[in-house]
Amino acid sequence: MKRLAVLGSTGSIGVNTLDIAGRFKNEFKVVALAAGTNIQLLREQIERFKPKVVSVLNEALAEALKKKISPHETEVLHGVEGLIQISALSEVDLVVSALVGAAGLIPTISAIKARKPIALANKESLVMAGKIIVEEARRNGVTILPIDSEHSAIFQAMTGRSKDEVKRIILTASGGPFLNLPYEKMKEVTSEQALRHPTWDMGRKVSIDSASLMNKGLEVIEARWLFSIPMEQIVVQIHPQSVVHSMVEYIDGSIVAQMGITDMRIPISYALSYPKRLRLDLPSLDLFHVDGLTFLPPDMERFPCLRLAYRSMEVGETMPAVLNAANEVAVNSFLEAAIGFTDIPEVVKTVMEAHEVKSLTTLEDALRADQWARERTKKLIEEMQSCG
Amino acid sequence: MKRLAVLGSTGSIGVNTLDIAGRFKNEFKVVALAAGTNIQLLREQIERFKPKVVSVLNEALAEALKKKISPHETEVLHGVEGLIQISALSEVDLVVSALVGAAGLIPTISAIKARKPIALANKESLVMAGKIIVEEARRNGVTILPIDSEHSAIFQAMTGRSKDEVKRIILTASGGPFLNLPYEKMKEVTSEQALRHPTWDMGRKVSIDSASLMNKGLEVIEARWLFSIPMEQIVVQIHPQSVVHSMVEYIDGSIVAQMGITDMRIPISYALSYPKRLRLDLPSLDLFHVDGLTFLPPDMERFPCLRLAYRSMEVGETMPAVLNAANEVAVNSFLEAAIGFTDIPEVVKTVMEAHEVKSLTTLEDALRADQWARERTKKLIEEMQSCG
Repeated sequence: MKRLAVLGSTGSIGVNTLDIAGRFKNEFKVVALAAGTNIQLLREQIERFKPKVVSVLNEALAEALKKKISPHETEVLHGVEGLIQISALSEVDLVVSALVGAAGLIPTISAIKARKPIALANKESLVMAGKIIVEEARRNGVTILPIDSEHSAIFQAMTGRSKDEVKRIILTASGGPFLNLPYEKMKEVTSEQALRHPTWDMGRKVSIDSASLMNKGLEVIEARWLFSIPMEQIVVQIHPQSVVHSMVEYIDGSIVAQMGITDMRIPISYALSYPKRLRLDLPSLDLFHVDGLTFLPPDMERFPCLRLAYRSMEVGETMPAVLNAANEVAVNSFLEAAIGFTDIPEVVKTVMEAHEVKSLTTLEDALRADQWARERTKKLIEEMQSCG
Repeated sequence: MKRLAVLGSTGSIGVNTLDIAGRFKNEFKVVALAAGTNIQLLREQIERFKPKVVSVLNEALAEALKKKISPHETEVLHGVEGLIQISALSEVDLVVSALVGAAGLIPTISAIKARKPIALANKESLVMAGKIIVEEARRNGVTILPIDSEHSAIFQAMTGRSKDEVKRIILTASGGPFLNLPYEKMKEVTSEQALRHPTWDMGRKVSIDSASLMNKGLEVIEARWLFSIPMEQIVVQIHPQSVVHSMVEYIDGSIVAQMGITDMRIPISYALSYPKRLRLDLPSLDLFHVDGLTFLPPDMERFPCLRLAYRSMEVGETMPAVLNAANEVAVNSFLEAAIGFTDIPEVVKTVMEAHEVKSLTTLEDALRADQWARERTKKLIEEMQSCG
């Protein structure tokens, strides 16, 4: 019986995680949940799983929640402190880190310091502070299990293998809803169009990142840290059918790939139950009825976010944290229709160019760069609006 | 340094094995070679690798060879005895079993009894006597490493996994040169057309077997024994591009596949160097320039050999040996233009129906069934010719 803490329980990954936990009651017990503001759904989850502790964004929400769950024996925490407490609970065997954005960083580190294995969906924490996280994990003997479908695929393709035999990691990308849209037309797209992902059903932030290919850029950085493979050996291939979830090419020319239907419960369950697999009751991938599987190089001209991600890692240190923070603010502004879709890479690029790189040795370095980039990005977008 | 005995050194697999051994002189030393009748090529191999022992088909060839290699310090053996001696040589660390057809069975068992790990290309020995071979290997703690590209793919996809988590093995098949040919036209095809395989360059027997899909049937049986997976869990999918070399579907819905260019040196080198991989200097698989990857169910009506292979395993015991022997004789007759292409399954089916199944407990049982089926098949073909 594995006891779980699920950080980000009301998001897309969190909901799917709880679906798995609910299907395999002999395998998992949910002892802690953390959510942001969706206390309605959190309340339902509390009723179903009866966790020992939960945490929400702030004190006001915590008070509101307490009133609704009075008869339960669930402690209600809030804020960063709440996340830290939950990620280090002695009753927890595995922390599912599925918060969206930079908010995932502190609890991830907290879980590592408490020597908890982590199932990681929060790629932003690795982008912001991959070096620190990997180093902490090594020092504490902590395993980080990927939840992202691409990284789960790579992880599965590398099972029982030495990374010294890896020639290339090939991250596949669906290409998103604008794969074939001319750049001029991309300028006009609405957030509604950008949220309509062709193959995966995901949260809002990651859907926009998929449309801009920033998501793939962040995943390249994530893969670099998760698998200790240099950036030059990680390539992206557009694979519109989303059947091959990623591949590893070895020095002998063999490529090992993982495929499947586009259902996040497969990689989630793999991370939860690793090293064993669970018998999921999902339809098999029907290779007879998929379109011919194709692979294309990504177009870095129409999708500059991917290039910016690679560039941030060439610079290294605090630059990837700046990329990530600027992107997060820009995506929110796009979702609020404050800027256009093609403004996202423009904004990120401008903020990156304005950044004075600092060396990244502590979590505070990453958080300071993050904070700086957020403020700078907000200001930039305000300026753009007052001019536009 | 691994010391190799290569049985079938002048065939397609043998030549590629020696190519690898020649490229990695620090990894491998060739101490023994066995060939059939091609003493010209064997002589060149002796000059290049200076093995301690070689063996050829019969005494006359052995004498002829001795005259040509006089200055070398190579002992020349012959016949089944020669194969048995070579496969059990104390100086050998790995036996590459790459003889074509039933001839591979006795030396394979001999190698197992001498506790030599085996790199197995000779699928017929597993078809004839899989139960006995697997049992002997288990008893002697011998690893059997597959050389066939499909089985190497499955082996790679199962590395570090439990077979209890396997839902299905998916063996891919190019479909051969007659994938889309109507049955009526198949009756007319010549051996030249049948030998023209669309994606792989292989020996004559296996090329014909690929055209009839008997090769895939034999591979299903081979997979059943190599991986201890029931026949019902092994399926064949036609994959005309030959990029995915086979797949394993797990109980969670994940499919792990191995892909690569169609170069036998990849699976051969994997079997030779297992568990590590060698840095082969081969071109990468270029996924940008392959056709869209497609998968189709096999047409058992037009390719009855595949169904016959499954049926032989439903009956079990000596029946697969009969399937194999009847096929071997029928393929030879087709290559000599004595029968037509669609006569191959007809002949095999007739011989299978005439067979009185015996229980398979010793090698002799398999060899007797093999012998019976050869004679019966030859007689049948003679009758067909005198009638036709």
